[in-house]
Amino acid sequence: MAVRRRNQKVRIRRAAARLFAKKGYAGTGVEEISRAVGIGRGALYHHIGSKDRLLFEIVTLPALEALEEAERIVAEPIGAEEKLRRLSRLTMRTIAAQLPEWTVFFRDIGALRQPLRREALAARDAFEQVWAGAIAQGVAEGTFRELDPIVVKGMLGMHNYAHVWIRLRGRLTPEQIADEFCEVLLSGIRAT
Amino acid sequence: MAVRRRNQKVRIRRAAARLFAKKGYAGTGVEEISRAVGIGRGALYHHIGSKDRLLFEIVTLPALEALEEAERIVAEPIGAEEKLRRLSRLTMRTIAAQLPEWTVFFRDIGALRQPLRREALAARDAFEQVWAGAIAQGVAEGTFRELDPIVVKGMLGMHNYAHVWIRLRGRLTPEQIADEFCEVLLSGIRAT
Repeated sequence: MAVRRRNQKVRIRRAAARLFAKKGYAGTGVEEISRAVGIGRGALYHHIGSKDRLLFEIVTLPALEALEEAERIVAEPIGAEEKLRRLSRLTMRTIAAQLPEWTVFFRDIGALRQPLRREALAARDAFEQVWAGAIAQGVAEGTFRELDPIVVKGMLGMHNYAHVWIRLRGRLTPEQIADEFCEVLLSGIRAT
Repeated sequence: MAVRRRNQKVRIRRAAARLFAKKGYAGTGVEEISRAVGIGRGALYHHIGSKDRLLFEIVTLPALEALEEAERIVAEPIGAEEKLRRLSRLTMRTIAAQLPEWTVFFRDIGALRQPLRREALAARDAFEQVWAGAIAQGVAEGTFRELDPIVVKGMLGMHNYAHVWIRLRGRLTPEQIADEFCEVLLSGIRAT
């Protein structure tokens, strides 16, 4: 029963993410989500609590999942370049695999009420801190040159903006895109 | 009279862009725009035609302006590196100077109806083509190495995503941010 309930929630989140990604959070009524999932409005509210709460879960679950994996990567005893390559692949992979969720994340996070918005943004900031840590390690190792902190934002932006154009079955896999980006970025920050 | 009318439209667009940037296109009523500008709903419609049309003008005017300047830059008899540096500065400058408009562009362009959406996206694609042309020139000159076309999207994404975090009076000017990005990107694509 708990499993069925959880599956139902996953189904609701996925359907809502697709609708939000297509029509925007404010442009999507709870009625539409209820129709897309095929359950009544009352039952839907029972599962999601509120539309705001639903938005919060849609954006934070992939972000926390990605953050956890990122933290595993940087905890490994490997060089900074390899860490960045893996972080890059992870970032492109999660964006491609959960494209509706990330589209909603990047576009509709401002629609979240406090304190939920703060909490969702904290996941994004923590993810950026992981990237910043890997770069700091590279600088400390002498692999990378000293970099202005804005460069981390640029590197992440390069990946994040992909939600606009990436396709799940495009010409390149998410990993290949990450590798192309890393060829440029790593050559661009390497100490010479 | 024509000047006053044009000023009124500029004022309406700016106020609407701020509201759309803050609350989303779908989340903003015409009533609110009318209140923000201090003119009646009827007079507002007289100026804007429709909310859809207003959104279209908000997103396309800065895009066409930037496109025009980008085309002037690449028409100059200068090397590919210098073109990219100038395109980078232009991109960061327009995003910072017209932040509400670009926020709406990146977030709410999907709310536009056809054929307006197609037209707005055409401006974005043309801007990308200008960047791609400057890179192609650099490859032809032997300044840059051969690059997968996806790299252009990454380079532009690095700039475009800045609408999320850039501030008009931040620690670095838009031009300084562009220069930091170019240090990484140009070292990353230079032929060795």
